[in-house]
Amino acid sequence: MGHASHSTARDEYYMHRCLELARKGAGLVSPNPMVGSVIVVEDRVVGEGFHERYGGPHAEVNALASVSDASLLPSSTLYVNLEPCSHYGKTPPCSDLIISKKIRRVVVGCLDPHEKVAGKGIEKLRQAGVEVTIGVLQRESEALNEAFIKSHTISMPFVVLKTAQTIDGRIAVASGESKWVTGAESRREVHRMRSVHDAVMTTSSTVIADNSRLTVRHCEGRNPVRVVLDRLLRVPLSSAIFDGEAKTILYTSNALGSSEKARALKAMGVIVCAAGDDGDFLDLSAVLKSLHDEHALLSIMVEAGGTLAGALIRHRLVDRIVWFVAPKLFGADGLGAVGSLGLQSVDDAPVMRFSSSRFLGNDLCIESSVFFE
Amino acid sequence: MGHASHSTARDEYYMHRCLELARKGAGLVSPNPMVGSVIVVEDRVVGEGFHERYGGPHAEVNALASVSDASLLPSSTLYVNLEPCSHYGKTPPCSDLIISKKIRRVVVGCLDPHEKVAGKGIEKLRQAGVEVTIGVLQRESEALNEAFIKSHTISMPFVVLKTAQTIDGRIAVASGESKWVTGAESRREVHRMRSVHDAVMTTSSTVIADNSRLTVRHCEGRNPVRVVLDRLLRVPLSSAIFDGEAKTILYTSNALGSSEKARALKAMGVIVCAAGDDGDFLDLSAVLKSLHDEHALLSIMVEAGGTLAGALIRHRLVDRIVWFVAPKLFGADGLGAVGSLGLQSVDDAPVMRFSSSRFLGNDLCIESSVFFE
Ligand SMILES: [Zn+2]
Ligand SMILES: [Zn+2]
Repeated sequence: MGHASHSTARDEYYMHRCLELARKGAGLVSPNPMVGSVIVVEDRVVGEGFHERYGGPHAEVNALASVSDASLLPSSTLYVNLEPCSHYGKTPPCSDLIISKKIRRVVVGCLDPHEKVAGKGIEKLRQAGVEVTIGVLQRESEALNEAFIKSHTISMPFVVLKTAQTIDGRIAVASGESKWVTGAESRREVHRMRSVHDAVMTTSSTVIADNSRLTVRHCEGRNPVRVVLDRLLRVPLSSAIFDGEAKTILYTSNALGSSEKARALKAMGVIVCAAGDDGDFLDLSAVLKSLHDEHALLSIMVEAGGTLAGALIRHRLVDRIVWFVAPKLFGADGLGAVGSLGLQSVDDAPVMRFSSSRFLGNDLCIESSVFFE
Repeated sequence: MGHASHSTARDEYYMHRCLELARKGAGLVSPNPMVGSVIVVEDRVVGEGFHERYGGPHAEVNALASVSDASLLPSSTLYVNLEPCSHYGKTPPCSDLIISKKIRRVVVGCLDPHEKVAGKGIEKLRQAGVEVTIGVLQRESEALNEAFIKSHTISMPFVVLKTAQTIDGRIAVASGESKWVTGAESRREVHRMRSVHDAVMTTSSTVIADNSRLTVRHCEGRNPVRVVLDRLLRVPLSSAIFDGEAKTILYTSNALGSSEKARALKAMGVIVCAAGDDGDFLDLSAVLKSLHDEHALLSIMVEAGGTLAGALIRHRLVDRIVWFVAPKLFGADGLGAVGSLGLQSVDDAPVMRFSSSRFLGNDLCIESSVFFE
């Protein structure tokens, strides 16, 4: 071999382009993964494509279709951030297509954890004599589809908590006032986040306090499904969140799931679901499981107060937290962004890793992954 | 004119070097400012110097003395981050020396606010025919000597608050445990900060809880003066902070300033001062004024709990806050880093500006300037 296209830097360069293309499907392909593909002949890109919308052709199909001179394919390398599929889904298997086109080499970002793929796509290619390299930009490839991977690994949605707080950890001053904690740039980023998550989850308390709609307005993008947790069915029927602009799911207690108010909500187009509760909270694990299994929602962004944030963390249901931090001080008598955790020892505190910190206008946007041991 | 050395980029390049040299005096020159000087002939550095220790020669004197061929001076440019002095202090005026050496041009970072200088140094140079450029890297030059400038502007010390907290703003869990919130890299940076501030201020509560010494141990550098606020004179005589390793000043109430315990502390070498109090707190403004006027301490780093932090902020006595932020969650039942502020409206919150955010091991170190309107 020793061909120049084998160099790691070159493979990473084209894989970066795959990831870039894949991201264009954000918010549009779930519950499918985001996938991009690039076809290269002697350092020249001859084809590109990505999975554009749920139900549409896979990235490899689009990339192959974009190549104008098919005679180039037997000497080409196909890059794709996720293992080519090997099963009949809404479309025929991409690995079969790659083999039929006589592609010389395939470079893969990460394996597909889907039980029907999980290495079988790679195996099929290798058995047909295709040279396969796996694990190029593996970490980035896995990160891009972390919700898809979590779904196919433990059948639960990926949960991203968002807080808008002061640097001293507060979301409201002593009087309870909480308007405009963070700035316009942070608000725009929150809307962008909504547009790429399958659903945004909030509580009746937040809906009642802010009358928020949770739609995407300060940037381009589609609305997420809206999920309201309302154990006691306290949310007024006149709330802005019932504007019908996006699918809205409301979870209440089993006791109230068939109540008159529940029926009124259903009549307004709201999907009303019931879940168990412990007298204080809905069973959050059951709610997330239901969102995953019954509604095919793989990534859930949580926009609510400290009580839900604290409960999700206590139940170890959070995968990532995005902190929008304003250069303000509200003081210890202000309201905390994360509710009580009842920790007896510093060693019991949830462990996180900061993955990034960047300025957004006057605010900082800090991302952290959460680990539970 | 039109000479290459007039270009802004070139002037900034040499001024950066002045600031770099000046910083070598950090912790050693106060209450004098940190000053560095570079002498350049046709893009060649022919001399360098900085103010090395309080009472020693000024930066310009050292830079001029380092030039081996004095015949070069009439064609040279002297760079210095602070206006050359024009008065007789511990040394003769630098502006006279520059004139006597026939330096062609002087480039200055910022003016010296000292009432005996304040533009007079520049005036003297210009009257003698020296070409003077002022304001090159002015913001950086002012930032370097912010404590010196504040001292000579409003006769109060520059106050830097340090917190070591979780991203949700807590310094202890619900049980009160607070060990090892931040990591080793943050601890080392805290010790470096101690080594460049004139004094480190803490409270009796912190001394009693942590038995901290506030000396510099995890890096090279001299110990700061230690200041303990102890209104009720509760600190045990056996506390580690009375180890005699650095000058230690204790402030107590007027009522206890001549008590038996105060005499015992004095016998141990502690400087005991008395200040007014309102029944809850010592008069923090009076304490800072005393540290500035009576002890010539221009920069005070505060290492204490949320109560002192909150009180200093409420009294608008804080200039900067350095936040060491750990990727941990202690929850709303944990202890806040900043005490109660009693805010009724978000608009009343102290306004800050984040000046930097950087990783320190697993922690983030975020700096903010505080503004009071
Ligand atoms: Zn496929
Ligand atoms: Zn001088």
